[in-house]
Amino acid sequence: MLFNPYFADLSNVYLFAEAENRLRAFLARTKPNNVIKMGIGDVTQPLCAAAVEAGKTAVEEMGKAESFRGYGPYRGYPFLIKSIAAYYKSRGISLDEDEIFISDGSKSDVAGFTDLFAKDNTVLLQDPVYPVYADANILHGRKIVYASATMENGFLPLPDERVKADIIYLCSPNNPTGAVYSAADLEQWVAYAKSMGAVILFDAAYEAFVTEDKKVRSIYEVRGADEVAVEFCSFSKTAGFTGVRCGYTVVPKKLANLNALWFRRQSAKSNGVSYVTQRMAEAALTNEGQKQTAAAREVYRKNAQVILQALRKTGVFHTGGVNAPYIWFKCGGSSWDFFDRLLNEVQVVGTPGVGFGRNGEGFFRLTAFNTYKNTVEAMRRIQSVLRA
Amino acid sequence: MLFNPYFADLSNVYLFAEAENRLRAFLARTKPNNVIKMGIGDVTQPLCAAAVEAGKTAVEEMGKAESFRGYGPYRGYPFLIKSIAAYYKSRGISLDEDEIFISDGSKSDVAGFTDLFAKDNTVLLQDPVYPVYADANILHGRKIVYASATMENGFLPLPDERVKADIIYLCSPNNPTGAVYSAADLEQWVAYAKSMGAVILFDAAYEAFVTEDKKVRSIYEVRGADEVAVEFCSFSKTAGFTGVRCGYTVVPKKLANLNALWFRRQSAKSNGVSYVTQRMAEAALTNEGQKQTAAAREVYRKNAQVILQALRKTGVFHTGGVNAPYIWFKCGGSSWDFFDRLLNEVQVVGTPGVGFGRNGEGFFRLTAFNTYKNTVEAMRRIQSVLRA
Repeated sequence: MLFNPYFADLSNVYLFAEAENRLRAFLARTKPNNVIKMGIGDVTQPLCAAAVEAGKTAVEEMGKAESFRGYGPYRGYPFLIKSIAAYYKSRGISLDEDEIFISDGSKSDVAGFTDLFAKDNTVLLQDPVYPVYADANILHGRKIVYASATMENGFLPLPDERVKADIIYLCSPNNPTGAVYSAADLEQWVAYAKSMGAVILFDAAYEAFVTEDKKVRSIYEVRGADEVAVEFCSFSKTAGFTGVRCGYTVVPKKLANLNALWFRRQSAKSNGVSYVTQRMAEAALTNEGQKQTAAAREVYRKNAQVILQALRKTGVFHTGGVNAPYIWFKCGGSSWDFFDRLLNEVQVVGTPGVGFGRNGEGFFRLTAFNTYKNTVEAMRRIQSVLRA
Repeated sequence: MLFNPYFADLSNVYLFAEAENRLRAFLARTKPNNVIKMGIGDVTQPLCAAAVEAGKTAVEEMGKAESFRGYGPYRGYPFLIKSIAAYYKSRGISLDEDEIFISDGSKSDVAGFTDLFAKDNTVLLQDPVYPVYADANILHGRKIVYASATMENGFLPLPDERVKADIIYLCSPNNPTGAVYSAADLEQWVAYAKSMGAVILFDAAYEAFVTEDKKVRSIYEVRGADEVAVEFCSFSKTAGFTGVRCGYTVVPKKLANLNALWFRRQSAKSNGVSYVTQRMAEAALTNEGQKQTAAAREVYRKNAQVILQALRKTGVFHTGGVNAPYIWFKCGGSSWDFFDRLLNEVQVVGTPGVGFGRNGEGFFRLTAFNTYKNTVEAMRRIQSVLRA
């Protein structure tokens, strides 16, 4: 039996697994009790009351013969699909219900969607980039080209007609840099994709963090995007579902036969998402649920302000944090050295920029997802390191 | 952008999706209120009380800041891994905790595991076979060879040294035929895999239905199997989790570097399983939970007896049902014609054998997962058709 040879092209460990390993080694060595995690984009605010109530009710339903549910529909339950369609509608975007697919999270879909394409496609990623886009395509043996996201272009590269690409990943608000595309920027990407006969895989996992009016929350705000773009979204950050696992993917029917292929792929490889989870997600999208999750996101927005204010005082270059829960700053030198220094000297865990790509070397990512108290304390400590 | 060309090699629709489509068309046409589903292997008994209690508690924990949990470990929570290790231990099998990986169900793992292998491997499947094994490998463009499962070999083919294979799928108790391998049979498969340098992917999703002493519940009951075999298992049928979604995969560390590759694949492509789900699965494995789920399985065992008795009266060939929740019988002619006839004439839904492979033509699968009352009524109706 022969192994998939492309595993050799992956880094040995997934970025966040490596960060976790270094943290574990540190904890074993020194047993500190004051580590603050600002690394992996994990939320800390509890689930909203509406989701908790819905979850308990759904679990109880599952315990009674008359309301028990077995396998759900492959696309997800209509009640949740309708809620998501209404959520888009409230932002002026009309979707057919069979353009929406429920999943156990954006990460699974972003990775799984790569199954729909042939090996011989060129994938265009930004550098730095969320590692999942790269890893999933590397495992298929695809050629990857990178668009440089740098301080010079505000970490928002625009298409270059000289570069040929078939599959284009865009993430806005961006993980890891927190940069956000405008509609005018995305119009250029849509036009480029059309001219290339390419597909855009648009990761909108952080759309709920957009606060500025001119920034885009869905690529479907751009005319013609439904002919070239798939959109991935998630309850993870929007509603604090990182431990509950629910996301959704929009595959427009205008977009070749990707909708049919995705349905075929999902029905062959998955049995859908827990009924309990889907009821919790539905509750997060009710008026009540949306008010509650907005309050949780407000905590993270305030944290982002704390981080930005602290970085402003140190004078280091930084970006993000306004329309995104991520703040990206210049730590200089080696990102992993800075990771080790923060961990060892002041017991703060962040994410080394180089883990997201070569252009990330010398940069560092912080998340706004901790508590207010921990964020204030972490920034006090980080300032002391940056000033040393 | 080029599509994965191997989609063209799949049947247009997934077997159970096609059965669902035909049912939906029938319902739209005639609006009957007496359809009985004996098709897709979906359970009907409610979740056990232990799982319901654990689920409600876990949901409540997620609603409080002090007990909220975000992303879980990529392998699954240690509390559930320990429970699964103890479950194996109670059957005399010792596993290391890091040989066990939690997932959202066997189907995802059985399909996802195919990512670990190169395109150029020959896959050995049985015919008839659970379609997921074939579909997942077809999408990778792999060559598939079939071992015939027939009335002559009791639907339990043994290895043929003349056939070269790299990846071998075995499912016992078998879906769809209900046949179960003995330890002596599996020793032959393990020896064959060793001689071929092949890996066995052993689907034990129905192990809890084994009642006869000499039949095997885990391939690790066979000496040396941990050098060649991965085992997939599930809470779906064991504990009625088809709508809750939880399974697990055992990847022995003796088995080349598959354990490391699977960890790398899972951390790159998934963010694990809902905390709530994992607590519910843990509860199903407590002494209390095991007693309760055994009572639910007893309902299905009795249903299987009802089905077997009815078929015995008609004189048609049938197998399964003793150590498995599936009963496989000879309907003659075209399986899909028989499907349509059962649906149209007596409003019973089953699964056409040919959907599982060529050798399934002329056969039909019934499941024991409905209620006792429905099973009795369905068999009264099916007898009338078989005697007509």
